[in-house]
Formats: sequence, C-alpha cells, structure tokens
Amino acid sequence: MNGMSLSPSRLDSAFRDLTCALGDDAVLGPGSDLSAYEDPYSFGMADTFRSSGAVLPRSVEEVQTVLAIANQHGVPLWTISLGRNLGYGGGAPRVSGSIVLDLRRLNRILEVNEEHAYALVEPGVSFFDLYEHIRERGLKLWISSPALGWGSVVGNALERGLGRTPYGDHAAQIRGLEVVLANGDVVRTGMGALPGADTWQLFIGGYGPSLDGLFVQSNFGVVTKLGLWLMPQPDGLMSCRVRFQRESDLEAAIDALAPLRRREVIQSNAQLANILHQAVGCSPRDRWYGGSGAMPGAVLEQIREDLGLGWWNLHFALYGEESMLDARFEIVRRAFSTIPGAEILGQKYLASGADGLYAWEVERPGAHLAGVPSLSALKVLKFLGEDCGHLAFSPVVAPTGREAVKVYTHLKARAYEHGIDYVGNFTAGVRHLHHIFLILYDRRDAEQRSSAFALFETLVREMGQEGIGEYRAHLAFMDLVGAQYSFNDHALRRFNETLKDALDPNGILSPGKQGIWPRSFRIERSR
Amino acid sequence: MNGMSLSPSRLDSAFRDLTCALGDDAVLGPGSDLSAYEDPYSFGMADTFRSSGAVLPRSVEEVQTVLAIANQHGVPLWTISLGRNLGYGGGAPRVSGSIVLDLRRLNRILEVNEEHAYALVEPGVSFFDLYEHIRERGLKLWISSPALGWGSVVGNALERGLGRTPYGDHAAQIRGLEVVLANGDVVRTGMGALPGADTWQLFIGGYGPSLDGLFVQSNFGVVTKLGLWLMPQPDGLMSCRVRFQRESDLEAAIDALAPLRRREVIQSNAQLANILHQAVGCSPRDRWYGGSGAMPGAVLEQIREDLGLGWWNLHFALYGEESMLDARFEIVRRAFSTIPGAEILGQKYLASGADGLYAWEVERPGAHLAGVPSLSALKVLKFLGEDCGHLAFSPVVAPTGREAVKVYTHLKARAYEHGIDYVGNFTAGVRHLHHIFLILYDRRDAEQRSSAFALFETLVREMGQEGIGEYRAHLAFMDLVGAQYSFNDHALRRFNETLKDALDPNGILSPGKQGIWPRSFRIERSR
Repeated sequence: MNGMSLSPSRLDSAFRDLTCALGDDAVLGPGSDLSAYEDPYSFGMADTFRSSGAVLPRSVEEVQTVLAIANQHGVPLWTISLGRNLGYGGGAPRVSGSIVLDLRRLNRILEVNEEHAYALVEPGVSFFDLYEHIRERGLKLWISSPALGWGSVVGNALERGLGRTPYGDHAAQIRGLEVVLANGDVVRTGMGALPGADTWQLFIGGYGPSLDGLFVQSNFGVVTKLGLWLMPQPDGLMSCRVRFQRESDLEAAIDALAPLRRREVIQSNAQLANILHQAVGCSPRDRWYGGSGAMPGAVLEQIREDLGLGWWNLHFALYGEESMLDARFEIVRRAFSTIPGAEILGQKYLASGADGLYAWEVERPGAHLAGVPSLSALKVLKFLGEDCGHLAFSPVVAPTGREAVKVYTHLKARAYEHGIDYVGNFTAGVRHLHHIFLILYDRRDAEQRSSAFALFETLVREMGQEGIGEYRAHLAFMDLVGAQYSFNDHALRRFNETLKDALDPNGILSPGKQGIWPRSFRIERSR
Repeated sequence: MNGMSLSPSRLDSAFRDLTCALGDDAVLGPGSDLSAYEDPYSFGMADTFRSSGAVLPRSVEEVQTVLAIANQHGVPLWTISLGRNLGYGGGAPRVSGSIVLDLRRLNRILEVNEEHAYALVEPGVSFFDLYEHIRERGLKLWISSPALGWGSVVGNALERGLGRTPYGDHAAQIRGLEVVLANGDVVRTGMGALPGADTWQLFIGGYGPSLDGLFVQSNFGVVTKLGLWLMPQPDGLMSCRVRFQRESDLEAAIDALAPLRRREVIQSNAQLANILHQAVGCSPRDRWYGGSGAMPGAVLEQIREDLGLGWWNLHFALYGEESMLDARFEIVRRAFSTIPGAEILGQKYLASGADGLYAWEVERPGAHLAGVPSLSALKVLKFLGEDCGHLAFSPVVAPTGREAVKVYTHLKARAYEHGIDYVGNFTAGVRHLHHIFLILYDRRDAEQRSSAFALFETLVREMGQEGIGEYRAHLAFMDLVGAQYSFNDHALRRFNETLKDALDPNGILSPGKQGIWPRSFRIERSR
C-alpha cells in the first residue's frame, strides 16, 4: 500500500525546509547513515520498510514546525520515541520513504512526584534514565521496566508494553498526555486542560470524554508529554517460583493461577514459561542441539534436567508489608499445592528501615520484579548467534486452562511443522493471558527467514478464525492482524479511519500504523 | 446556545416518521406526558431544558432507524439510559426541543459470566435488575452500586459514577462497548471487533487505539452494550468507621488516608463526611433547626451529640480472606491512631462456607459496601421536605490535607454567605479526592433557588481560578465547567469538537453535552 506517490523532488524539498528550520544537526537526509532506523531483526524486508531520513526536533515548537513542513509537502512521517520496539520493527517505518520523526531529544524528566508517586516525562526518556533519576535522589518510588530497559518509557506505555510489578500494565498507568496534532495544535488531556491544576497525573478522568486511550498504538497525534503512575515503594517483596513437572500441568497451572490474578492475591503479571523460554537466556542453542529442525523432546528433557527447571515455570512476586506477604503467600501455596509435584518457592526481600524497600536493595534475580531496568534479556536474542532474528506472536487468550492448552497445542504443532522451536510463555494479566511465542530464527538463513514469516502469517489467520487476536504486531503484519478485527465489515477500522481523516487530513502521521490508513493511502486496499 | 432552528414542522415530520417506523407505543409526541423527562430537581429552568417528546426503541436496529430519521430532519436527540442522573438534569435535554432517545427498552442482561466475573448489559438494565439476576442464580459475584440503585448500570458507568466496593470507580470497570454511530454504523471496541472472541470483556486493550474512554461523558455515539467487570465475591468484608473529634482534624485525616488508598491497603472509595452529610439521611432539617440561613455551629454540635457522630466521619471497607482483613486493619489502625481522639471501629462479615461471602449475607449497614443496591439515600433528598432540590458541586482535589482544607474552608464560607448549609464529603479515590458538596434547597422558594444557582456558578469560577475543576455538572453548568478546561485557548474543546463534526456532521446526538457542540450550534458561542 503506497497510494501517496513520494516523488524524490518532494522529499528533497521537505529535507531542505527541515534543515532550514531546525538546522543541519537535526536532520539526517538521504545520504546519511540511517542504520538506526532499520529493523534490527528484519527478515529480509529492509527495503519494504526503509526510511528516507530522519528529523530530530528538540522541543514541542520544533515538532510543530516539522508537522507544518510535512503537511506542506505531503510527506509521511513515522513517529518513534527511541525506536526500541524490537521484534515489531524497531525504528523502521511502515511506509518506505517516510521521514522518521525521532523524538529522542525530547528527553526531559519534567517531574517525579514522590508524594503522589507519578512521573511526567518526554518521549526520549528511557527506563534507565528514569530509574537513575529516582536512585540519585533516593526517592521512595519504583518504576516498572519491560524486559529491556533501554527503551522509551513513553513509547513502551503507548505500545502496551508490560513489566513485572503491580504497575506492569504500562498503558494502564498512563495519566494525562500532551499531544501535538497533525495541524500543530497542542492538546492536554484530562485535568491537564485546566490551567494551574495539580491533578493532571492524579485523576484518570476529567470532564467529557477520556482521551488518553486514543493515542495508544495510534497515529492520531504526536505524544510529547506523558504522565505515568509509579509505585510507592512497598515494605517488602516476595519473589515466588512454582515449578510444574509435566507438560500436561499447563491446564491445572492456569486454572489455579487465574483466580489468584482475578482476585489480585497475585498483584502483578505472572509469567508461566516453558523449558526453552527459560533456557534461551542461559546459553546458545548449539550447546544443546546442533541438528536441523525444531529441538526434539529428548533434548528439551535434557535441558530441563541440566538447568533444574520445571516443564512449566511460573514466576511472579507478592508485594507489601510482611504480614501481607505472608497472608498472600499462604493463599497462593494452598492454590498450587493441589497440583501433584508442583514445587513452590518464595524468597522475601524486606525493608531494612521505615522508608520501605528501595528497588536498588533488591538483588538479582528479584530486581526485575522491583522494576529495575536491565539489558540481560538481550542474551535471549543471541540464542541462535549474532544474527538471531526474532518475532513475537502475541495473542490475547482467555485465562482458562482449556484455552491455554488449545493455543499451546496448536502453536507448538505449527512451530514443529515449520522447523522452528517453540519458545513460549503465558503472561497472566488480571483477567487475560498474553501468550508470547518468541519465534527465533537465523537471519542469514533464507529458508529459516521465510519459515518464520510463513509461520507467523499462518498463526494470525488460524488463530483469528478461532476468535483469538494479537494485541501488537510487526510492521509486516499490521494490516493482517488489523484485518482480523472485522466485526460488521471492519466497522472498527472504518471508525478509526474516520478519526484519522478528521485529525490528519493530509495523512502525514505514521500512515498504516496498526492497519489504520489515511484517505490518500486507502485506494489500494479497496481494489 | 440554540443555533439549529427547530421549527415545529420539522419536529412534526420527525415524530410522524418515528411513529411510522417504530409504532405508536414507541413514541411520546408533544401532547404526551413528558414529566419523566423533566429535571426532577430543577431550579426553575424547566423551560430551558424541555424536551419536545421521546422515542423508545426496542433494538439496535430501531436505534439505527431513529438516528436515520433524526439526520433526515435535522432534529437533535438527547440520549438517556434510564434518566436517573439526579442532580445533573435527570432525563432532561441540554437543548430545548430535543427528542429524548430513551433506551430503557434495551434492557437485556446479555451475559453474566461467573468464572471471569463480568457482565454484558444493555442501557436499560438497572443496578437492581443486575443484582436480582445474580441473586436469583446464586452467582458468586458482587456488583458495585451507587447511592441510588434504580439508575442504569450503563449510564452510571458512562457518567463516571461511583460505588463503594473495590470496583467502585465504575468508568474504570468498562470492558468493551457496542456503539451505534450517528451514521448508523455499529462498532464494537477492543476484542469485541474480533468475530468469535471470548475476550471482549477480559482484555482492556485490543489492537490499535483504546476507544472505550471516548464514549464516557460523550455525545460521539449511542452505547447499546457495555461490558463491566464485576467483583469475584471475597471471603470477607470488614466495614470500618473512624470518627474524628475536631473540625480541624480534616487535614490529618486526609494525610493519613491518602497513603492507604495510594498503596491500596484500603481498596475502595473511602468517604469522609461532615456532621450534616451524616445527618441529612436521618431526619428532616426542621427537627434540628427552624431558622433562616445556614445552620449555626451550635446546632451542628447538637446534632453531632444526638447522633453520636464525629465532626468528620470516615467510612470504608476492607475485603478478602480473614488473614488479609486482619493484616490490612492493623495497618489502617496504626495510621489513624496517631490522630488524637480518633475512634476506629471495624465490623467483620465473614463467609459461612467455602463459596465466599454472598452480598445478600451482608446486613445493613454493611450492605452498601458489598454493592447491594438500595433507595435509602432518597431520604437525603427529603431533608428540606418534599420539594427539596439538590445540586452537587463535585471538584477533583489532590489528596493532601492542605488541599482538602483549602477547598473545605472556601466552600463552607461561600455556603454560609449564600445562606446554604454545607453538606459535604471527600471521597478518596486511589490518588485523588472527589469533593462532593451537596447543595440542598427548597424548590418552592425562589430566593433559595437563585442562591443555590449563584453559589454554584461562583464556586465553578473561583475554584477554576485555583486549578480545581469539576468532573461532572448539571445541564445548566455544562458549558461553564467545560470552559474552565481552557489550556491553549480551549484546545481540548477544539479537539472534541473536531471529533464531533467528523462523527456526527448533522449534530443530532446530544448537542451541548459536557460543553461539546456540533458545528451547527457553535456560531452562537463564537459571538
């Protein structure tokens, strides 16, 4: 889909005007090194998603200027915060030729409020930045970091990223946005629209419609400030692991886990991972297996034994005063003890003083459960060596053992058919499961690349037929995933595109993101 | 504001077509008894907010038909679920002459899912209906009811209503909507757009922007189905009361309460009420005081003594297994025991069996904390006799003692100046306070009516200057409250009205709701 013809002369004029307005050092034109805006895990489609350059504004005013120039020349932008959405396209644009609107220079931590436990940040602030800010000042607050801490706090929340603390549903912690619209207008949502209000980050509502959700996984505006709830640091944390012995324990494990999450006895995203998901971060694949195709079951059993794993491995934490940890743990213990062979371990980290437990007092392996950012998950991405590519197939599944088994059985069978290892986990939200099937492949191997691609496409279609959909997808699959949400002949897409046309009539903001296209691009789809 | 000229002949044609399409019994024309659509607590402005009739569709298809006819004739509709938004206009429209689109006949409880603890309901379902449905079937679920149980579950959630259980922020429990747009298109949000999905009510997100918030306090569409999370019934409830002896304890009380809410040791909306707020439901005002003007302090002291109240009275509940109740209560007790004279009482209700505690096992006065609907709060509205009017001034306040004292002191002073009793409470959400100042007045008394009106207007303006805004308002104040949210020359309103024009180009859906006007009506404001 590329309905807007992007002539070189139009691009040239846009780059010239951008350079004039923002200066040389804010613009990376066609001759520049644009590797930062290539999909680092691309499966041979770099040309399909190749930017023509990038612009790096330093202020909201400069963002407005960029949008004015893009409108004037009819040039599409692709907005990124830090471009670390690995496995989903990184900093690469959906439409080839787009200019990347890179917000990394908007990197101020505008406020961290210890009393009310929130932050107001710009898109260029990483999890490391926010964590270090808090640590340097000794604030009694925890952040929630996703697996990799180098990404943008804003970008991750807007893309529905996940962490492991009770604040681990990052989109749900959004409290107030500042957004630059395509026409340059600057809107503050919720209580932020009230001059002088000190409740912008406190009250989730406001007066009239709640608009924050509109800018999640969206191309309706450019978010330049985002309020986020942080966790008042608790007095204690208990890192809990449950090891289930048999592959067939999946059903019982989910059926025991779901009510604990629903009742918030377990307060945070709990991760139930298979053997390989636990093993991929430990050592390269060829330590275990050098053959072709997916790893045989016997090898998995060997890994399990070597690393002392369960077939399924549940990991989560409990939070609060010691009396609360004990009360919660007892309820949890009781629930899982009905499953034969399940081993339940808990490790407490308690505050040494009256201030509560500082995140930096929690040692590994508990640190991630206290929201401490790290890069240790990068090891996962070396499982197949330096050229290991990855894609995550991420359907939303009802939290019942039956559904989990259905999805797992199907995915595993298809993975083996495609000669790909099944590396998977179920992450239990309050009332749903995120299934994450990490498709790892060797990027140098054309056959593996096309197998991974074909597998993903097959899974989207087959799961879609079963009423199971993904909550995010790589650039190459955004349209396909969006097309599954087809109720009433794609009424949802029609609705989103009505808003898109009203808010961005020239279609300059991230066209095609999540399958939402501006009018000028829609001609091709309708053919 | 009435830019759309509503000629009698246009209305006549619309009523004729509605009657033709839906039948006599679905239409209340100009000659009918329209008292159900008058503001029951109007302060002499009935003619400003008078409907010309009503239409009561029985299905989504009939809603579509109604919208088509309204578009054809350019007649504004005013959508209500059951019209019980008392104190905010009831079933009366913002624009006089509007036809009320009354959804009471869409009254099916489409699903109550016990395992996953949610309901999918139509707008005509009341809290009583939903509660009885659950009770008849013995389901292990609690609803959360606002003070009056006869209202619509859908309408209340969409208007940001509050209850007293951990699920008491009703808008925050919304999980998936079906909406009929002005053009008749039917959209399902979130996972509801995926045919066959069983996660519509389970996952708050979806793929692409989150749209549920867009239909909260909104005139962007007609919500015909709403998913709502219910509470899995807990094993116990502990009703807790704290009585503070002195008026000046407000500051310390809020400062002790806020961290308990922020850390969710207290899991539900906690209400801190002054003497009169506690007393208004007990007996009519003239039992205590027959004089003119606001009640003198000595009378308040007398009431306090007679009823055994604190000056401030905190009421909330704790939820969970007994071990969790005990752990939570101990933390709460410790926090409030630092305030001299504070009396802390707790009353436990525990499950008699393994099924947990059924809401109907919780006796009064704890029943409301278990979400059981009632009409007992109607007594409040008789405080000044049968013609007692009421308005609620509802600013959102940061949860600190300092801010609470500032707001309280100001409101009380203004109330006394206007000869109006200060009947107020602070309801503590997770990180904000809803202050509710219940302005009660005698509707037969023109002077009291105009005092109440003038007081409200003064408070909106004065609090607005301080950065304190309301989250809801009566029809007569919708524009004024909206105008306070003026950042960047009313960018928020401009944004909402851009969406309004795109979604409802003829401006037929609830024009003026929350100060959002379609293009055809905006001429007057710009003058």
